[in-house]
Amino acid sequence: MNKLPIGIFDSGIGGLTVAKEIIRILPNESIIYLGDTARVPYGTRGKEVITKFSQELVNFLVQQRVKTLVIACNTISATCLSELRNISPVPIIDVITPTVEYAVLSSITKIGVIGTPATINSGVYEKLFAKFDKKIKVKTQACPMFVPLAEEGLINDKATELIAKNYLLGFKNIPSLILACTHYPILHKVIQKTVGPKTQIIDPAKPTAKALKDLLSQSNLLNDGKSITYKFYVTDETKRTAEIANLFFDNKFPGKLEKVVLD
Amino acid sequence: MNKLPIGIFDSGIGGLTVAKEIIRILPNESIIYLGDTARVPYGTRGKEVITKFSQELVNFLVQQRVKTLVIACNTISATCLSELRNISPVPIIDVITPTVEYAVLSSITKIGVIGTPATINSGVYEKLFAKFDKKIKVKTQACPMFVPLAEEGLINDKATELIAKNYLLGFKNIPSLILACTHYPILHKVIQKTVGPKTQIIDPAKPTAKALKDLLSQSNLLNDGKSITYKFYVTDETKRTAEIANLFFDNKFPGKLEKVVLD
Repeated sequence: MNKLPIGIFDSGIGGLTVAKEIIRILPNESIIYLGDTARVPYGTRGKEVITKFSQELVNFLVQQRVKTLVIACNTISATCLSELRNISPVPIIDVITPTVEYAVLSSITKIGVIGTPATINSGVYEKLFAKFDKKIKVKTQACPMFVPLAEEGLINDKATELIAKNYLLGFKNIPSLILACTHYPILHKVIQKTVGPKTQIIDPAKPTAKALKDLLSQSNLLNDGKSITYKFYVTDETKRTAEIANLFFDNKFPGKLEKVVLD
Repeated sequence: MNKLPIGIFDSGIGGLTVAKEIIRILPNESIIYLGDTARVPYGTRGKEVITKFSQELVNFLVQQRVKTLVIACNTISATCLSELRNISPVPIIDVITPTVEYAVLSSITKIGVIGTPATINSGVYEKLFAKFDKKIKVKTQACPMFVPLAEEGLINDKATELIAKNYLLGFKNIPSLILACTHYPILHKVIQKTVGPKTQIIDPAKPTAKALKDLLSQSNLLNDGKSITYKFYVTDETKRTAEIANLFFDNKFPGKLEKVVLD
């Protein structure tokens, strides 16, 4: 059981920012990543469609035999976490709960959350913060153009700066800002520049990887690191997919993408 | 047979620009539109995935009984026209052939084509122009950000102007420019402003609707216009979908969207 891989999934390849952090802090673990690049993005779709697609991803990874699952996607975590736990025989770590738990540890009174329309419209961040600490004021904003901008690699671009300025108008000097979409760390620089240097930017990859490590440790499921493997599956692959995957891994992609067809 | 509707399909709702023109020049015909909003966009995906998805759209419309099919999508037309004709019992009009046939009627020597990565990388416009007239020089450019910009309604936006300027750098004063993606007519103004007032912009909706009218007329399949119906199916519907659909129809949407699940 301990030797089984960790299953990580996302609507596309943005979740690789989470996979990278998991590989960094759990170097003795095998990984199976699944990105639904044939149907990305999920963040502009409705709940029913997102739930159906996500259940297909879970079923694929469960068939591969994994010891735990990580949802490396805010949209999926916000939309159908309980529906996925209902069909999964192994524990599921989502990307939102550990991030909120981490944020409430600091003494902030106001926090910003930016994400896809599906994530922001779900209201899940407001609900979770209210559960932990009713005194924190949560300000949210959907940024639908950030995913295509990141996927096109428009990182140091005047148009990206203008779009960021428009979305983040009310976030100037906010104490903390959660990047509630796994694509957004790619745009970290332009976001930091727009909100100002005083804002602490929170990338959910770190608290999520930490929560996974705690779970494996508590359940006595850590691997000894002998003969580990990395597998990266995608449901569609174009020339561009490998380029962006490499971009998400700071140009050091630790494997190769393999195309799979979901039943 | 004459009373059967015309089936029109697209990866999403951009094809409504074609449906609108068909309704305008064929007011006596019933229409069934199908947009795959659960899996849009197609233009950044690979051939195998685009072909599989498109065949599912054709199968759905054929089951509804239609007298002819119109591919209101450049990406699908460029990627798998012959694969779709192989499985369709009724004639299929694509959006590319009629547009090239229309363009070669004028005495131009140079033409621009802008579209999705899948359309541009297919090289289909170069091949078709060469078949009709070897003297026309074809200059192409993929504009992957134009679809999300149009879907977000960023029509009079400085960021859109900057992105357009970047894509269309080599298209200034080109005699003719084909908008080889059914989303792009939404950005007509900013595209015209960027290339200059001398450029004739060609929207494939008109030649495609004309080719359909010719086919129906030649095959004696025109309807008499008694009790016509319009049906608009989508595979996913969010609040945003209806808003954008309305935008594509100049705020006069002639029906309502209905959600369907493809087998």
